[in-house]
Amino acid sequence: MRPQIVLFGDSITQQSFRSGGWGASLADIYSRKADVVLRGYGGYNTRWALFLLHHLFPLGSATPPIAVTIFFGANDAALLEGTGKKQHVPLEEYSDNLTKMVQHIKNWSSSTLIVLITPPPIDLQGRREYARSLYGDKASELPDRTNEVTGTYAEQCVSLAKELGLPSINLWSKMQETEGCDGLHLTPEGNAIVFQEVHKIFDEAGFSDLPFDFPPHSEIDGENPEKAFLQQCAAV
Amino acid sequence: MRPQIVLFGDSITQQSFRSGGWGASLADIYSRKADVVLRGYGGYNTRWALFLLHHLFPLGSATPPIAVTIFFGANDAALLEGTGKKQHVPLEEYSDNLTKMVQHIKNWSSSTLIVLITPPPIDLQGRREYARSLYGDKASELPDRTNEVTGTYAEQCVSLAKELGLPSINLWSKMQETEGCDGLHLTPEGNAIVFQEVHKIFDEAGFSDLPFDFPPHSEIDGENPEKAFLQQCAAV
Repeated sequence: MRPQIVLFGDSITQQSFRSGGWGASLADIYSRKADVVLRGYGGYNTRWALFLLHHLFPLGSATPPIAVTIFFGANDAALLEGTGKKQHVPLEEYSDNLTKMVQHIKNWSSSTLIVLITPPPIDLQGRREYARSLYGDKASELPDRTNEVTGTYAEQCVSLAKELGLPSINLWSKMQETEGCDGLHLTPEGNAIVFQEVHKIFDEAGFSDLPFDFPPHSEIDGENPEKAFLQQCAAV
Repeated sequence: MRPQIVLFGDSITQQSFRSGGWGASLADIYSRKADVVLRGYGGYNTRWALFLLHHLFPLGSATPPIAVTIFFGANDAALLEGTGKKQHVPLEEYSDNLTKMVQHIKNWSSSTLIVLITPPPIDLQGRREYARSLYGDKASELPDRTNEVTGTYAEQCVSLAKELGLPSINLWSKMQETEGCDGLHLTPEGNAIVFQEVHKIFDEAGFSDLPFDFPPHSEIDGENPEKAFLQQCAAV
């Protein structure tokens, strides 16, 4: 069994295997070393994601993942007075919910590397265009999210990570100056930023030194291929 | 546990999660429905891949995958008199090895959908440029693969699939008229072709109707979120 890296989050995680997506890039760079497991749930906030926790991370069973990225907040930060009010989760509960996720995974395995990722910035203009593309003239003119409010969730996420001693990525702050976010979802540039930041943290944790699952073809002797497989495949 | 789709093959499979890659596109389209598991081994031929069979597909243990793509032949077809001679596997053995793979997986689960994919065409000019980019002036002027020889492996693969009653994709023939292959590896156009062909076969097998692993957010009642999760998450 290869080690697993689980990407847990909302639509920004669910869509991370689209062309140039940050999840696919991680799967590519760790091919032969680790499996990148996609657990993204479009539209979910942390409150709803808690219902999945015991199913996605079943304590005691199987081998725990070597890393989990927890990437929520974009929906929690929806405004109570906007069209996304159903998704709204108060700031304090968002923080409590993240804590529950972290504790649950830590209960499973204290050695699992957990990375908290903040929501990206909100581009009001982009959001409006997105709403119009979905609803045409019926699109609400009132914003369902604002950059300022989402920023408080990002701040809370980073400060919680510090408190819990976990690495975090402040995407909201890193992406303010870029075209990384098309309203809410990530552009190719945004995907590249998330990939680079996650990769940096994984690299510092030594993931680049993870062994290949089987010998590279350059180590296989054409005349005696079985030699290269002896150690790992003795049972064959 | 989500159903699994295993991609088993050589470098064309290993690299399938690069930007626009066919593996990543499958993972994207089945996100929330199935896990796409990457088992690509750059440089491997079918002879060496047989050593991995019992490890990647351990009979009796766990749940068998709902589908496996078997995508070898590009290295088996390396010429005996070229720089890739170590990788060469005679045509008849290539066919026997594919048969062993299929039988092994069928022994595990007769309901697993197995798709055989032929090697793509060889573009001699592209191969030469690739060799020069790696070895400069030391690059051999002799071809290590030819389009004709690889074509015989593709033909064998398709005829074996017919014999075994399996769906197959004749990439060698489909890609002759395209820019799908940059010497040996796939271009974005080539990746799109593989994705479309595999997707079509999966679609015909009903994979589009696979259920979502958890409720879509539109089905969650903001006031009573637990209701939507009751059936699937009763244990929480």
